Amino acid sequence: MYLGGIEAGGTKFVCAVGDDQGTVFAKEKIETRDPEYTMSRVISFFKNFKIESLGICSFGPVDLHRDSATYGYITSTPKAGWANYPFVRTMEEALHVPAGFTTDVNGAALGELACGAAKGLDGCLYITVGTGIGAGLITENRLLNGVTHPEMGHILPRRYRGDDFEGICPYHRDCLEGLASGPALKAHWGRPAAELPANHEAWTIEADYLAQALMQYVLIVSPKRIVMGGGVMKQKQLFPMIRRRLQELLAGYIVAPEVKENINDYVVPPALGDNAGITGALILARQALDEKKSDKKYA
Amino acid sequence: MYLGGIEAGGTKFVCAVGDDQGTVFAKEKIETRDPEYTMSRVISFFKNFKIESLGICSFGPVDLHRDSATYGYITSTPKAGWANYPFVRTMEEALHVPAGFTTDVNGAALGELACGAAKGLDGCLYITVGTGIGAGLITENRLLNGVTHPEMGHILPRRYRGDDFEGICPYHRDCLEGLASGPALKAHWGRPAAELPANHEAWTIEADYLAQALMQYVLIVSPKRIVMGGGVMKQKQLFPMIRRRLQELLAGYIVAPEVKENINDYVVPPALGDNAGITGALILARQALDEKKSDKKYA
Repeated sequence: MYLGGIEAGGTKFVCAVGDDQGTVFAKEKIETRDPEYTMSRVISFFKNFKIESLGICSFGPVDLHRDSATYGYITSTPKAGWANYPFVRTMEEALHVPAGFTTDVNGAALGELACGAAKGLDGCLYITVGTGIGAGLITENRLLNGVTHPEMGHILPRRYRGDDFEGICPYHRDCLEGLASGPALKAHWGRPAAELPANHEAWTIEADYLAQALMQYVLIVSPKRIVMGGGVMKQKQLFPMIRRRLQELLAGYIVAPEVKENINDYVVPPALGDNAGITGALILARQALDEKKSDKKYA
Repeated sequence: MYLGGIEAGGTKFVCAVGDDQGTVFAKEKIETRDPEYTMSRVISFFKNFKIESLGICSFGPVDLHRDSATYGYITSTPKAGWANYPFVRTMEEALHVPAGFTTDVNGAALGELACGAAKGLDGCLYITVGTGIGAGLITENRLLNGVTHPEMGHILPRRYRGDDFEGICPYHRDCLEGLASGPALKAHWGRPAAELPANHEAWTIEADYLAQALMQYVLIVSPKRIVMGGGVMKQKQLFPMIRRRLQELLAGYIVAPEVKENINDYVVPPALGDNAGITGALILARQALDEKKSDKKYA
């Protein structure tokens, strides 16, 4: 059974045909320009295969409310042509298969839970630290959603002592994303994060902000495991720094052994690397198919 | 059908017999001393009625993991006699009925969702601001739980400009609970919160800290509605101050109409007043009964 997956990002779309074990049979990367350019190529790719269903994990913000008139839309993005774009409807009409839809980070969480660093658990939090900062949460095998999907990158960490960088978030200035995303690091230190040496003080500050974020997530949603991906997290020296600082901040208050004793297995890099999102898209495709079948059964 | 409910607090236990609509037929308050004193009275109360099941909403920390050896226990409390106390087993053995078990704030969330300020929705966040600060979250009609239950009161707000009160949390000093709970207000201002005039600057600072907490909750779990209860929230002047400050902090980033346009219906006082917890305990009793019945069906 062939499933289709789309990981729709701000710079490129990754399209794949594969199965729900994360095996990919065919893959294509398509540049994110305007919808006309990009979507015609996306649709052409999938028309080469006989897929049963499709999973779409998209940059956002997106509308995930099934009963909303704009369900399956990319909503208020500043990206030219993509605001109010009916992503799900376009794909369903072009390919005549059911489509699942969620955010890019939710997709990565689904992928890591099913086949990656959180395999065997019933939930995890996936956070990406890259061009932006965002996270998705799964508890009891369900993606968390509320009046909107989570926007965990915009929380307010306490400022690191002596750090007077003003922050770059157009909404909140010095929120987590404004202080600790890849572009924030570049603006702060005058060169790309990847060019800063591993012992640069930038990483001490970065680890503090990210540990503060993880502290809030642990206290508020108590994830089963935290998977940290995205370009900035390729700086592997961050992991032990973040774990240590997180335990300092929690000060022994959370006694769950996952956090207190086994932090090395609690805050981890993705096992799927850059494939977490597209794997999640295939899982989502499978869920969309199962859902459609169960609809029929009761119809 | 009679259901039993217990709202177990640090100073008193409220025991009630009622139905799952929140109607209470009989109620008794029992002082929280050692387990021997308190529990013998609790059990005697319920033995006067023929209840079908029991719901227990308890002070904590508690163990909510069904597959844990200490499920249904109060775990690491400093309260004399109550550490490692097998609450659920004690009640089930004494009354021979199934028992549901959760935290006190989860209970209040269940009550407000079923019969109170969040009625008609599929989820809400209930936060109590009183002796301590804690919160429970329901999404898609399910209580959120992870490696432990949420401990949302211990997040770190940014310090209000000029506020140098050191905070009273024994773990984190100036976390939310350390700065904004009832005892923190008393330690900061030298008299009980209830005696501070409504225009005292204490309330401006309090509203800022609580709005910061709500901001984190909105960004991380996006609750369908936020119900604010507990002793400190009886200061009704706080509600408009918190709503205004929350919107300032979010800076228009969350476009969901619940937050952006209808904040007066989004951040609300409990509709059940001090009865939220005991109502939730009765709902929980009903759930425990339903669960037992469905077990039988498949046994």
